[in-house]
Amino acid sequence: MPKATSRRPAGGELSLIAGLTQELSKVSSRAVELGIGDDAAVLRVGKERLVVTVDDQVEGVHFDLRWLTTADVGYRALQAAASDLAAMGAEPLAAVASLRAPRGFPEARLRELSRGQAAAARELGCPVVGGNVARDSHLSVTTTVLGRVKKPLLRRGAQPGDELWVLGELGLARAGLLLHQLRPKLPRRLAAVAARARGAWARPRALVREGRALQGRARAALDVSDGLAGDVQHLARASGVKAVIEAARLATMVTEDLAELGDLLGEPGVALALRGGEDYALLASGPRARRPPGAKVVGRIERGRGSALELETGQRFALGAGFDHFRS
Amino acid sequence: MPKATSRRPAGGELSLIAGLTQELSKVSSRAVELGIGDDAAVLRVGKERLVVTVDDQVEGVHFDLRWLTTADVGYRALQAAASDLAAMGAEPLAAVASLRAPRGFPEARLRELSRGQAAAARELGCPVVGGNVARDSHLSVTTTVLGRVKKPLLRRGAQPGDELWVLGELGLARAGLLLHQLRPKLPRRLAAVAARARGAWARPRALVREGRALQGRARAALDVSDGLAGDVQHLARASGVKAVIEAARLATMVTEDLAELGDLLGEPGVALALRGGEDYALLASGPRARRPPGAKVVGRIERGRGSALELETGQRFALGAGFDHFRS
Repeated sequence: MPKATSRRPAGGELSLIAGLTQELSKVSSRAVELGIGDDAAVLRVGKERLVVTVDDQVEGVHFDLRWLTTADVGYRALQAAASDLAAMGAEPLAAVASLRAPRGFPEARLRELSRGQAAAARELGCPVVGGNVARDSHLSVTTTVLGRVKKPLLRRGAQPGDELWVLGELGLARAGLLLHQLRPKLPRRLAAVAARARGAWARPRALVREGRALQGRARAALDVSDGLAGDVQHLARASGVKAVIEAARLATMVTEDLAELGDLLGEPGVALALRGGEDYALLASGPRARRPPGAKVVGRIERGRGSALELETGQRFALGAGFDHFRS
Repeated sequence: MPKATSRRPAGGELSLIAGLTQELSKVSSRAVELGIGDDAAVLRVGKERLVVTVDDQVEGVHFDLRWLTTADVGYRALQAAASDLAAMGAEPLAAVASLRAPRGFPEARLRELSRGQAAAARELGCPVVGGNVARDSHLSVTTTVLGRVKKPLLRRGAQPGDELWVLGELGLARAGLLLHQLRPKLPRRLAAVAARARGAWARPRALVREGRALQGRARAALDVSDGLAGDVQHLARASGVKAVIEAARLATMVTEDLAELGDLLGEPGVALALRGGEDYALLASGPRARRPPGAKVVGRIERGRGSALELETGQRFALGAGFDHFRS
């Protein structure tokens, strides 16, 4: 589907997206193996399978220039786009980017933005091979990344009995964002985790290696970009199963100092992990026997529909519209 | 290079683009056969050669909603992006698009925009397989198209002795734009050409078939998107040759009724053809013996540098900074 760019798409936006998807899905071709609807589209070209996806980073929606350098903006724009490829187990090949900036935005800072893109491109092995520059009322970067994959990992495919795995961090980047928004007074013992949190938010990394390691192990995967509570629903819906997040397991993903920082920021550990998206962790499901090294179990797949948070008491809360992850 | 989106990039913008290009070109990879600098980038994936390019259509820069339906905006966004692939002799495979619209922009009109994209996608055999939606102060569409090519036609490669060919129309779309801007009173005999001109501007077509027919015939090619006078310089510069446009030959490309319409709009036939860009014609050079059917000769390639307009008297005018094609 065309994905909403606002971090928490609300009802109207979702209906708009459904409408546009309906129009665009009327046209297909032999080259299209998977169209709109997953992290990226899959194309078949000769003997190759390609994946392609587009991501927007818009000032005021995804970032605030008081909190990021323009180099950070460039860096995270490319990493965020590449994260969709990582979730499919693909290898990024190249990117193109469209850059918009207000008239009078200093040229030196736009070069700095491109230096940030280049830094991410180097780390990802994914050069920016084309672009466009235009004037706009605010800064934004639209990035399309192209990758290659043998067998794409999709959102669908999860089966009852699967474990739910997370690769990467959850909640650290969200704590970084909250630190900027709330500017709390920090005890010295939290300085280190606060610095890590700010770094995680400013310079996220697409987990390409981790995604490729899921090949042959996971049955379904996606990247956690809107928050675990929301993204786990995408996996459950696409797979036609019920996804259960176990609060106790999720809590073990949050280090003690991050939990303490979360308390101070008004979002205790598990809430931070449930709402956290911009770490660009990967969420996957697969059989226990094939769990990849480094994957952390956060729950399981059951027969049924929807998704739930399960407490140690056995009590369950639906992670549906009722859960306030749309709060922001 | 990152291409400027404003229709007539001026000095400052060109220096910005050069700066960004310099930063981004520092990163390459084995997959990149041709990076920033031509109509599209060329990637090598297994035995396949892929081309990829991005194009922006921004309200107030590229279009005015008083003159286009939102369906037209969607249609021309995809065609304009595909035109860069046509110029390389490539076959479009798929596109992704990022759509931005002001809050409150009617959902029905955005669906209409997607219907326009779908209509172009159907004609081009190039489905839109992914997208993004975001809020912005004005309407815009950023389109990335991906294509496949055996041997890409580049801007470089023109040789002294080559003919200069144009495929498609020149100046008709510009007349369409001027009709909207100037709203002149038209004599009835010009109604038909005026309708054609408005249609050419609202619904341009990427000349994919014509571009593929240039394979094995042309030595260099690009699409005329910023105006022939400017684009011929790109070909001359990239090829290290002098390009000479012959005014008398160019005049034969302008039909009598279009020339009359041009007079009425204050841009006589040849000026219309020199400034015209949004017809998305193709400009190519190649040996006379390999001239493709339908190509119109508009000049020739000589030893030297730069580009010139040659009158029948033999008098020449440089098509450089001196030529006022930056007027708009």
